[in-house]
Amino acid sequence: MKTIDSLVHARWIIPVGPDDTVLEHHSIAVSSSRIEAILPTEEARRTYQADHEITLDRHALIPGLVNAHTHAAMSLFRGLADDLPLMTWLTEHIWPAEQQWISPEFVYDGTLLATAEMIRGGTTCFNDMYFFPDETARAATDAGIRAVIGMIMIDFPTAWASGPDEYLSKGLELRDRYLKDPLISTLFAPHAPYTVSDAPLEKIQMLSEELDTGIHMHVHETADEISQSTATHNERPLARLDRLGLLSPQLLAVHMTQLAPDEIALVAERGAHVIHCPESNLKLASGFCPIHALHEAGVNVALGTDGAASNNDLDMLGEMRTAALLAKAVSGNASAVPAHMALRMATINGARALGLGDVCGSLEPVKVADIVAIDLDAIETSPIFHPVSQIVYAASRSQVSDVWVNGRRLLKDGRLTTLNEDQLRTLAANWQNRIAKGAGA
Amino acid sequence: MKTIDSLVHARWIIPVGPDDTVLEHHSIAVSSSRIEAILPTEEARRTYQADHEITLDRHALIPGLVNAHTHAAMSLFRGLADDLPLMTWLTEHIWPAEQQWISPEFVYDGTLLATAEMIRGGTTCFNDMYFFPDETARAATDAGIRAVIGMIMIDFPTAWASGPDEYLSKGLELRDRYLKDPLISTLFAPHAPYTVSDAPLEKIQMLSEELDTGIHMHVHETADEISQSTATHNERPLARLDRLGLLSPQLLAVHMTQLAPDEIALVAERGAHVIHCPESNLKLASGFCPIHALHEAGVNVALGTDGAASNNDLDMLGEMRTAALLAKAVSGNASAVPAHMALRMATINGARALGLGDVCGSLEPVKVADIVAIDLDAIETSPIFHPVSQIVYAASRSQVSDVWVNGRRLLKDGRLTTLNEDQLRTLAANWQNRIAKGAGA
Repeated sequence: MKTIDSLVHARWIIPVGPDDTVLEHHSIAVSSSRIEAILPTEEARRTYQADHEITLDRHALIPGLVNAHTHAAMSLFRGLADDLPLMTWLTEHIWPAEQQWISPEFVYDGTLLATAEMIRGGTTCFNDMYFFPDETARAATDAGIRAVIGMIMIDFPTAWASGPDEYLSKGLELRDRYLKDPLISTLFAPHAPYTVSDAPLEKIQMLSEELDTGIHMHVHETADEISQSTATHNERPLARLDRLGLLSPQLLAVHMTQLAPDEIALVAERGAHVIHCPESNLKLASGFCPIHALHEAGVNVALGTDGAASNNDLDMLGEMRTAALLAKAVSGNASAVPAHMALRMATINGARALGLGDVCGSLEPVKVADIVAIDLDAIETSPIFHPVSQIVYAASRSQVSDVWVNGRRLLKDGRLTTLNEDQLRTLAANWQNRIAKGAGA
Repeated sequence: MKTIDSLVHARWIIPVGPDDTVLEHHSIAVSSSRIEAILPTEEARRTYQADHEITLDRHALIPGLVNAHTHAAMSLFRGLADDLPLMTWLTEHIWPAEQQWISPEFVYDGTLLATAEMIRGGTTCFNDMYFFPDETARAATDAGIRAVIGMIMIDFPTAWASGPDEYLSKGLELRDRYLKDPLISTLFAPHAPYTVSDAPLEKIQMLSEELDTGIHMHVHETADEISQSTATHNERPLARLDRLGLLSPQLLAVHMTQLAPDEIALVAERGAHVIHCPESNLKLASGFCPIHALHEAGVNVALGTDGAASNNDLDMLGEMRTAALLAKAVSGNASAVPAHMALRMATINGARALGLGDVCGSLEPVKVADIVAIDLDAIETSPIFHPVSQIVYAASRSQVSDVWVNGRRLLKDGRLTTLNEDQLRTLAANWQNRIAKGAGA
């Protein structure tokens, strides 16, 4: 018998790769940080001697969920300002609050709170864009979660950097620091076409090619963004990005609620990825991203929650459900984005967009062991005709029982192993008091 | 000191009536089945001597949620057939399954499963439409939940009744049986314009007036329904209902995804209620109910989950969130349906539509004690700048800790008191085996 670290026996395993498979009474063998094998439980018991043998006989195992767009630290602004359109929300509430509060301490604490929420909800990897990304990386490392950290760039000065040159140099320094890290990687993260000028975008485009590193950017979030660009640049933002060479397989275009048919074709032709954040788009009344049409055109569409200040949660199971439901109504086709496809969007498609398609996003040897167990034996998910249907359309994140990242169990029977919930709630309450006093909220 | 049954001390009380109030450190005094008073906790301790004194110092108390449209027994078909348009779903999956399985036992068991889910999620009252409504009423009574039972009417024969006359007589018999019941009331429930002919609708209209009893009906659910009616009756369903006298304050029109501006004005003028089921409408790609425009026109809009076969849950907190988010995107106005209004839709508006506006739907003396406690001290709802924002935009039903219906505690620290969860899961699994074998699912 072969000795391994962990053997997890499950009622169902939904590997996502290959597509649409549901394995019953199978087990995952984990050796060090990687998936060694997936095989029938009886065979697994005969084949492996494991240090930890875990039986999850009411559970489905799925690949860890990939949150392909968020601003983790903004969890400390959750519910600070609701029911407002994007520009009012940004210019009158969020930007002033950020001006007042953003600091290394804020970003570290906010990110730690966010990672606790994400791990509890089955997210094992998140793609972040925020100031003090070094603190985001430090918090993710302390939590043990996989993270892709944005080398943020924005024209105006903030507490993090004085202008484009400093944003870039600090970002690249961060990139170098984590170059061989098993959990942390980096992407360029110019904020949006309307906040970053041509010159820094051209520099990023060049570096992206040289370093084979993706570009994470808000694009076509609202109709206002389009009309503003047309007025200023005499072209739509997507056309401008294409002219600057950014529309390529390196681009992760977030939101994309405003897309003409020729733009969908162009995105497909250029091989760019689209990150869909349906709940944020709904809440800010930004518009509807046409994900069914994008799928049909062959575009890789992944999912993100956006920050908790505009969502107001980091719940990827919920986001997956909203995406699946909304796509049907928006396309007028109840067969659009069926359950299996929604699960792919929340896992492998996200991994691919982040350049981690060979690392995570599906349960396959020899990918890393980023695994989530969902307890389906609940009133809310009974009966179970099809486990994937229950996961996408009925289960809630409170049914996530266990989470492994890189083979390490970060959630055990619903309890965090690397973070202290009580301390985090106290931390959040302390920030709440400071912010509420400051904002008169 | 005055002796009462229960005194519940809470961190926050959100009474809904009066609108938009958030009380801090207040208590609810419950005497028998009713709310005796709501007052500051210190004063409450001085005023009352309670048999049960309960301190919920991390919790918000809200009125019990009112699910204004469901088919409870269909929980046994949860996830049987997904990702299909309404008519395919109905004619090829649901109706054949109903033909094969609907029986008194199915309806009782399915409703019991549904009431467990609803109570666990903070729903204290549901408005049902299904066959064997006597069994629905029996299950609701056994669970201790408040229910409005539809006197169902449909042109074609089913196991429950042979045709319109028998549907009506059996419905009225049920009505008489529960006329003085503290928890059960009844409404007329003709299925839809496309499944009920003019003659039975006219009879129902007449009886509705005579008996001062509402009419619960699917109306304008899909574009197909409209075109079919135009072809058959040479008028849109709403016009036909108006001609037959059904468009009145007695009507609860469910779905209403297809509404021209003049129809919105007509609904407002006639005083009919609209029951919005956003998740079902999304999943079946039925369309978008224009609830912001309906609100602006002065129409009372309530919320329902629809049945679990098309949702796939009975989660009113989730439905409220979806309604609030979707209304902003559909109206293009991020200020549409703010959090407080969403909470009203899920509580008092539902009670009003069901003819229970003086009974429940808000926390006020001397309404019945239908109360829900939500534990907001979770990672997922931290920090708390505004408790109503957390409840509508971030909290999940797993945070519902306690539920009272008519003063009786049906959920205590997250545990059901009148129902046995293990038994219900076994019951659901048994039905699953029978149905899956029968359907080849």
